[in-house]
Amino acid sequence: MLKPEVLNKLRAVVGNSHVLSEPEDMIVYSNDATILSAKPEAVVQPANRDEVAEVIKLAARYRIPVTCRGAATCLSGGTIPLKGGIVLELTRLNQILKIDKVNKIAVVQPGVITFDLITAAGNVGLLYPPDPSSMKESTLGGNVAECAGGPKGVKYGITRDFVLGMEAVLSDGSIIQTGNAVDGDMCGPDWTMLLTGSEGTMAVITSITLRLVPLPAVKKTMMAIYDRLEDAARTVSVTMAAGIIPTTLELMDNLSIVSVEKYLKIGLPVKAGGLLLIEVDGVLSTVEENARRVSEICKQCGATEVKIARTPQEAEDLWRARRSINPAFGQVAPCKFAEDATVPRSLVPVLVEKIMSIQEKYDVPIFNMGHAGDGNMHPTIMFDKRNKEQMARAEQALDEVHIVTLELGGTLSGEHGIGCAKAPYLRAETGETGYKIGREIKQAVDPLGILNPGKMFFYEGKLH
Amino acid sequence: MLKPEVLNKLRAVVGNSHVLSEPEDMIVYSNDATILSAKPEAVVQPANRDEVAEVIKLAARYRIPVTCRGAATCLSGGTIPLKGGIVLELTRLNQILKIDKVNKIAVVQPGVITFDLITAAGNVGLLYPPDPSSMKESTLGGNVAECAGGPKGVKYGITRDFVLGMEAVLSDGSIIQTGNAVDGDMCGPDWTMLLTGSEGTMAVITSITLRLVPLPAVKKTMMAIYDRLEDAARTVSVTMAAGIIPTTLELMDNLSIVSVEKYLKIGLPVKAGGLLLIEVDGVLSTVEENARRVSEICKQCGATEVKIARTPQEAEDLWRARRSINPAFGQVAPCKFAEDATVPRSLVPVLVEKIMSIQEKYDVPIFNMGHAGDGNMHPTIMFDKRNKEQMARAEQALDEVHIVTLELGGTLSGEHGIGCAKAPYLRAETGETGYKIGREIKQAVDPLGILNPGKMFFYEGKLH
Repeated sequence: MLKPEVLNKLRAVVGNSHVLSEPEDMIVYSNDATILSAKPEAVVQPANRDEVAEVIKLAARYRIPVTCRGAATCLSGGTIPLKGGIVLELTRLNQILKIDKVNKIAVVQPGVITFDLITAAGNVGLLYPPDPSSMKESTLGGNVAECAGGPKGVKYGITRDFVLGMEAVLSDGSIIQTGNAVDGDMCGPDWTMLLTGSEGTMAVITSITLRLVPLPAVKKTMMAIYDRLEDAARTVSVTMAAGIIPTTLELMDNLSIVSVEKYLKIGLPVKAGGLLLIEVDGVLSTVEENARRVSEICKQCGATEVKIARTPQEAEDLWRARRSINPAFGQVAPCKFAEDATVPRSLVPVLVEKIMSIQEKYDVPIFNMGHAGDGNMHPTIMFDKRNKEQMARAEQALDEVHIVTLELGGTLSGEHGIGCAKAPYLRAETGETGYKIGREIKQAVDPLGILNPGKMFFYEGKLH
Repeated sequence: MLKPEVLNKLRAVVGNSHVLSEPEDMIVYSNDATILSAKPEAVVQPANRDEVAEVIKLAARYRIPVTCRGAATCLSGGTIPLKGGIVLELTRLNQILKIDKVNKIAVVQPGVITFDLITAAGNVGLLYPPDPSSMKESTLGGNVAECAGGPKGVKYGITRDFVLGMEAVLSDGSIIQTGNAVDGDMCGPDWTMLLTGSEGTMAVITSITLRLVPLPAVKKTMMAIYDRLEDAARTVSVTMAAGIIPTTLELMDNLSIVSVEKYLKIGLPVKAGGLLLIEVDGVLSTVEENARRVSEICKQCGATEVKIARTPQEAEDLWRARRSINPAFGQVAPCKFAEDATVPRSLVPVLVEKIMSIQEKYDVPIFNMGHAGDGNMHPTIMFDKRNKEQMARAEQALDEVHIVTLELGGTLSGEHGIGCAKAPYLRAETGETGYKIGREIKQAVDPLGILNPGKMFFYEGKLH
């Protein structure tokens, strides 16, 4: 527990009702979307940048760990206060400060829910493309801190491709402005990118300047159904090799299809080995041409059927199936390792087959699905943590998924972050020099080590 | 001069003929494309990464400054060895190591000339978009180190948008791999972006993994001619507001037009107040639609004529005019400050008018032109440095260009870098905290301060 003196000072900054320290509150704030947990000593809810800076100054003075939290949908333990201390909940900083239509730029506070920005931008004919599955709950601060992706990553790129600048509070309470609202700025090393994906270990983001793009005139959504998952995976690399860049190319295996169908009952093809959910967008003529070409490629690769949504409602139904995989996990087992193993696009078929073997080898259910179009797969290993033997097999399977991904020249994290969940493997990806530099830069920026301690390069558990 | 002992050790690493130390060599290697100069003590030309690492280890051991150099087309003093020491010439590392057509990725050594990659990618139906005017001479290592832009930045973005990873030698001679060949990778903070734009102050780049895009099926090149420069500038923001994103939107003022015409004699409209060189690319139907809409907007904004190139040769002639501005500068005066003042796109008309006033106020010729479409203008101030009084006026004009740019929410450097030329203004852009963090991170990565000393955050001259 923090000393009463410290709690009182925190209350003086943010107001009594915005410092939580009751034991039941600490339980509520101990989790994210992983199975990991650790209790904070207090939860502090600042209302603005200056309150954030004052809280950080107190934390620096009393050497209190600070872990930022938005919607806590994190899949790598990013928001878990491993070392106790303060959970800094940033959901009160929830204003869209500006949408500049001509320069195609938005300025937002970190607590804005991603979908709210997508909606607001859409209202003026613009698109904020990154669309993680959690977009209706997760916040832009979290999306930037973890560098979220999403289905649209294939065509548009991931969060880092849209962050132009930010305002952040450093570990001594000082305020830094990075980048700016000029799309195309490049003045010196890119501090904005140092903070993007830094998972709350470098600074507390208090405002973000984001790039928007024109809203595409039309889009077309299709579902290709396959007997064999491998054929669906192969379609991805054949489409890419043909020079077509769809907006999305989502892969679902039989386990995903069956689980979603049990949950939604919308008539999905439960006997299919796999399916692809494909969207193309742009101007009408291009979209029709690309939809036709993609549809042909699907059939050449063995699709037994290609359904094209004829109405926005039909398209929405197809998307609902994809977005319901997360809630449908519960149909299979209570616990999951939700990974984001990402490999070069051409190697998606190889990764898919390797995951199929891992599933067989360790006899644990694995959802073999993900944003196949940009190589960002989401193998999700299901288990019940109360069954120790099963959990051990799940952990071995997880281990092998990480190793296979790195062997294929891939990365541990396409979008979920490293946090503590994947930290044991980080050194294997960065190499010794990269790991050392990671530690040195973090120490330069946060010499007291108060920002999200124990994560990423400062993980203290066993390293693989 | 370096001690004979050190020179011998350098010769042992790279071979006798690849260590230059004669006084006349030192003169040749003292300049880049600015008016600044400083002599090195030796020029070392390594053949590969391991030789680079050995040279850096020697430099660290003897505390010798190391300044990297490619084609030395730098416009901010980046390759000038301010503190003497070694100029590390990387042009022998000039191999395109891989072009992966399916994953749309290239791996290159830093000494590859940008245009050679563009050509090689084009041969397999791919495009490397960043196209600085120097692309036929400048190297990819330099483009990445300075984060070059180019006309295509409007649609495609600048160099940093295409760098996926790199291999680099750190200041102690150790080797780091950052990012990887997965388009969409994001594992931890983005060290790749820490090195991109770091102007040789953080590490020596020895290999670069670059993203490529599909080569557009067709393109259309147009020239819009205006009586008034302001109308040409206004066309830029109106086009952007209309939601059209051309591939390029290049602005030239009367001084640029007249100088190029004197140089090329190709019948440019020498009485025009300004012109726009516009290109749109993509699939045929979209390109024709966009060309028509842009052409209408040009006329609405006051264009007296819009010429559409009917053949690739006509298009090439239009581009030749744009690319000849640099050689045409010499028609006006022997010296120049070639700036890359970049502002939000909607403010290009304001910046153009402010530059017109500055030209009048200080009575120095300023080429008022640039990549207007992404706000990256190239006001180029002409003078003769032998005329002290004129040079003083040119310096005052330069000062005011920088101040105006920052006042408009812009950045000092859209693509030329900070180096020493713009270092006096850097603190005004980054703020105190940003400047301090810049110094601290550089010190963490290069504790001996041997990499390109005296540049950027470690400039020792007068600060504005």
